[in-house]
Amino acid sequence: MAEILDGKATAAGIRAEVAEGVAELVERGLRPRLDVVLVGDDPASATYVRMKERDCAEVGIDSRVHRLDAETPQGEISALVEESNADPGISGFFIQLPLPKGLDATPLVSAIDPSKDVDGLSPLSAGRLAVGLPSLLPCTPHGVIQLLRRSGVEMEGREAVVVGRSNLVGKPLAQLLLRENATVTVCHSRTRDLAAATRRAEILVVAAGRREFVGAEHVGEGAVVVDVGIHGREGGGLVGDVRFEEVEPISSMISPVPGGVGPMTRAMLLYNTLQAAQAQADGSSLG
Amino acid sequence: MAEILDGKATAAGIRAEVAEGVAELVERGLRPRLDVVLVGDDPASATYVRMKERDCAEVGIDSRVHRLDAETPQGEISALVEESNADPGISGFFIQLPLPKGLDATPLVSAIDPSKDVDGLSPLSAGRLAVGLPSLLPCTPHGVIQLLRRSGVEMEGREAVVVGRSNLVGKPLAQLLLRENATVTVCHSRTRDLAAATRRAEILVVAAGRREFVGAEHVGEGAVVVDVGIHGREGGGLVGDVRFEEVEPISSMISPVPGGVGPMTRAMLLYNTLQAAQAQADGSSLG
Repeated sequence: MAEILDGKATAAGIRAEVAEGVAELVERGLRPRLDVVLVGDDPASATYVRMKERDCAEVGIDSRVHRLDAETPQGEISALVEESNADPGISGFFIQLPLPKGLDATPLVSAIDPSKDVDGLSPLSAGRLAVGLPSLLPCTPHGVIQLLRRSGVEMEGREAVVVGRSNLVGKPLAQLLLRENATVTVCHSRTRDLAAATRRAEILVVAAGRREFVGAEHVGEGAVVVDVGIHGREGGGLVGDVRFEEVEPISSMISPVPGGVGPMTRAMLLYNTLQAAQAQADGSSLG
Repeated sequence: MAEILDGKATAAGIRAEVAEGVAELVERGLRPRLDVVLVGDDPASATYVRMKERDCAEVGIDSRVHRLDAETPQGEISALVEESNADPGISGFFIQLPLPKGLDATPLVSAIDPSKDVDGLSPLSAGRLAVGLPSLLPCTPHGVIQLLRRSGVEMEGREAVVVGRSNLVGKPLAQLLLRENATVTVCHSRTRDLAAATRRAEILVVAAGRREFVGAEHVGEGAVVVDVGIHGREGGGLVGDVRFEEVEPISSMISPVPGGVGPMTRAMLLYNTLQAAQAQADGSSLG
């Protein structure tokens, strides 16, 4: 029986820590504030934003949502980014992705001040991570690291394999695992023998974005398996990138879907907002 | 007998291509110009800078060296960076590293406009590479990729292993190999079983910065081996990170030291200067 990497409980612990940090800032008259730029009326995006507002409220972070029409011109969003960068009342902000057709996310995200880039997705934040400077870390890969660390998984010197190389997860996660002194392999759709590569993993993180893609044949005995995928299941419920029933008996630890990486991602956004507010309060640099 | 990855000949080819590109710009009245900021009187730095000036002259790139006293205050160098960013006559520039004690390279390098960052070492250039945006690439890792590509080495889907995780070589090289669709593993000083990891490599790049560190026990039959190390040898001459005599018989292709990566690094600086000048001429974006 594999031990379950309990993202729900771990995330609750992080939220409690964030709430404490927020309370200290509030005592100094500095309530952290997270702003969200929400463009258009994508229902999934609206749901995510509501969840994030609720999370903020729980830990005492102030939150504001800028709801913009799908037809909003690029320049107007760009101006909002500049205003948000300049506004000392805003600790951090992000643009809810994806944007409606006709809008180009890259220059908008690139313009976010790295000290307020709570999604950690701007090129400058990615570069600061790559070269080892302090920065706000992308929420999902940072959530994976925190889940491993807080579950007592030793990463130093171990063989870590990441499946997937997205800017959102795979690539920054490889950087973070390297920073934890793991030996890191990145596999992807062009990898010739995926199962051979993933079976070598002592720590296997699957962020392929493919439903129930990884099975018993991909996993070595005793591996720690983290499943980043989230897919709706026919008839309701959620599944990940890993065939849990198959992989659980082989692995030593495994994260479930739901209740694994998902809650961690949400918690790390709060963590980043606090970190940004603290750095601004103390005058330390995140970019 | 392994085939030799001939950096000297490949670099000569690149210089010839750069010279052609420069000539085209010169016909349009736009001679590319590379500026160097050289602080202090480190003899090795002075030698490198002289070599770079000579390389520029060979391909028709104008070059200027800003020689500053070791006691120059940080703010003065910072101002020079800003002037160089703003000067439309300068295609690209770099700060020769290391800087004398008392100076902090990080904020200076970070302030270089990515469209002029011909060393490709600023956090923003690193981040643009990480997220897949166009950027000037760091010279040594880009030189490795060009040496492999121009020697007919297929990278897609192959197992590539990088030994070393410096900001200068290992980490950006991993990004570039990933972009070539290799399956990429990064090993380093904390890797538990280095030989086991490196023996899996179909393409092995050694950038450990340790003299004659990698031997026969680290290399699988038929591997392509690239040696990024350069160390002076007692009694004169140069050696790399790889024990060439031992590894050559096992490998299918191998880069020598000298005559491997070294000339490629130098050629890629010229390549970057031309690329920066072309992008400025055409109004296309590198950052």
